[in-house]
Amino acid sequence: MRKTMMAAAAATFAAAGVAQADTYDLQSTFGLNVPSIGPSPQIWADRVARMTDGEVQINVHGAGDFVPPFEVFGAVSSGALPMGFDWIGYWAQQIPVANLVGSMPFGPTPEVALGWMFEGGGLEIIQKAYDPFNVKVLPCHLVLPEAGGWFNKEINAVEDLQGLNMRIAGLGGLAMAKLGANTQLVPAGEIFLSLETGRIDAAEFSAPQLDVGFGFQRVTDYYYFPGWHQPSSWDSIIINMDVWNSFDEETQTIMEDACKANIAYNLHDQVDAQADAIAEIREAGVEVKRFPDEVLAALREASDEVMNEQAQNDPIFAEALSSLREYMDTVGEWGTLQDLPAR
Amino acid sequence: MRKTMMAAAAATFAAAGVAQADTYDLQSTFGLNVPSIGPSPQIWADRVARMTDGEVQINVHGAGDFVPPFEVFGAVSSGALPMGFDWIGYWAQQIPVANLVGSMPFGPTPEVALGWMFEGGGLEIIQKAYDPFNVKVLPCHLVLPEAGGWFNKEINAVEDLQGLNMRIAGLGGLAMAKLGANTQLVPAGEIFLSLETGRIDAAEFSAPQLDVGFGFQRVTDYYYFPGWHQPSSWDSIIINMDVWNSFDEETQTIMEDACKANIAYNLHDQVDAQADAIAEIREAGVEVKRFPDEVLAALREASDEVMNEQAQNDPIFAEALSSLREYMDTVGEWGTLQDLPAR
Repeated sequence: MRKTMMAAAAATFAAAGVAQADTYDLQSTFGLNVPSIGPSPQIWADRVARMTDGEVQINVHGAGDFVPPFEVFGAVSSGALPMGFDWIGYWAQQIPVANLVGSMPFGPTPEVALGWMFEGGGLEIIQKAYDPFNVKVLPCHLVLPEAGGWFNKEINAVEDLQGLNMRIAGLGGLAMAKLGANTQLVPAGEIFLSLETGRIDAAEFSAPQLDVGFGFQRVTDYYYFPGWHQPSSWDSIIINMDVWNSFDEETQTIMEDACKANIAYNLHDQVDAQADAIAEIREAGVEVKRFPDEVLAALREASDEVMNEQAQNDPIFAEALSSLREYMDTVGEWGTLQDLPAR
Repeated sequence: MRKTMMAAAAATFAAAGVAQADTYDLQSTFGLNVPSIGPSPQIWADRVARMTDGEVQINVHGAGDFVPPFEVFGAVSSGALPMGFDWIGYWAQQIPVANLVGSMPFGPTPEVALGWMFEGGGLEIIQKAYDPFNVKVLPCHLVLPEAGGWFNKEINAVEDLQGLNMRIAGLGGLAMAKLGANTQLVPAGEIFLSLETGRIDAAEFSAPQLDVGFGFQRVTDYYYFPGWHQPSSWDSIIINMDVWNSFDEETQTIMEDACKANIAYNLHDQVDAQADAIAEIREAGVEVKRFPDEVLAALREASDEVMNEQAQNDPIFAEALSSLREYMDTVGEWGTLQDLPAR
């Protein structure tokens, strides 16, 4: 019945010349065909259009359609682009706390990250960092942990990290470097050749679902877990603050709720895709392994040092780090209490 | 800008006499003030109203406003009530598979339950069981694991379950009975006195967030984890199928999306509340413990037997059980691979 009534309404609007849909461009930092994160902004835009009865139309563009991927933030900040979609960690240069929200080593699991963001004060802290750039941030896609990475050397002890040539970035990369690894950032397209030719011994790229498409399983011996450097991560919709303020409260709430629906959707979208990818990686002859607990303990210690150092350079990073640590302490026991032993 | 335009639209509608909001009554099986699950249907109804621009108005009523709580399903089925909100397990009498979705012992964690429901074919199987009753089911609230229960006897070995008088229901209760416990269903309001007077030795009621309000910490010695009998659970919106079919596809999708937003919301709503409740329970002098792994292994074996027996009585239960077991096997390794060792 709703459709019919809306058609009548549209006719009425048209006749009275009252309303036209407002249309906004959004550029993603990702290609729209990348698994899971690619379609996410379009799914959000479809929800917003449906929930506003077509009044807010968002045209979703892939990486590079208007500006290079890493300039999306600047373009949204200046108003050149009304909206963007990102991995929050990309903006660590402008906003140090983005490094923490993008990938906090030994940080919160996805469920705990969700709690901290919306109940634990996380969103308020992060928005404070975005405010000077005139950008509204809507956390809109909660990313599962990545893998620990592809290795051509077995890691049996902390000493095995010394002199290891590894492609790894962010806070996790700094922690690896503290333990003696030579870390570097090889562009995605060159990782395969670098591993194949032995120019690097190891590379961390993404989760199995994405990694498998690059074919790393053809040129490596081991695939390590856990993704200690990024147990969870956020992608977000960013909106120029003047554009955001031009929406009434109801529309703003709808945009936030559409993100909540996206979050639930992408949480259930990712898990079985990882299982399928891991099966394919094993079939290619790669051994799937876990880092020894001793190595993880050393990485955790090094990560703590790295994050404490970063906190000294930026007060909002410091506030978020302390808030996250406290939140993880408070809720951390829940996982331990509820853990079911393996069959 | 949207508000202004909508005001104009409303005026136009009113003048033309085109539209009135459609209003539906919904009765919950819970009181609206119960923590977490109480407000859930109202939050959903608010979302639906906002996302349909007030066209679909749902009046949410608490337990007993029209019919007794356990008659909500029958009333929605007959059309006496257009909508309800429930714990799915309440309908196990009419729909055997509801027992599995309500509480599957050693079943999926919340994230895995989410994946199975929407990606693993779960929803299709369940809807098939609801179809003969003319009821549409929208999973709308994903419940975290409950606690393992309140005990006045320590459980150090399987033998300690023999002769234990425990308040516990559902499939978990049947498993406990297989191991020699005397299980019974004491009404919520009588549990406190039954524990205090020693009429029962143990009682499973809910999660810490709800349990603490009943004051069980004042009359028991131990609070056990994990909630092996219910690692996850679903609450749902149920809608009379004729009412559901009267909505156009866009409105139906909005109702489903509003449930997705509810699911993300209630996942982040529950975790820190549990931590706070556990702290309060400890302060009251109760020892918070985990069942020994040996006891959990025996309970798992007994649960498997119970579920296999139930599957023989109902083909949809059998289909759901086999689908859930296969899905848990497929994605199960992910948790093990990604587990971070305790600090």
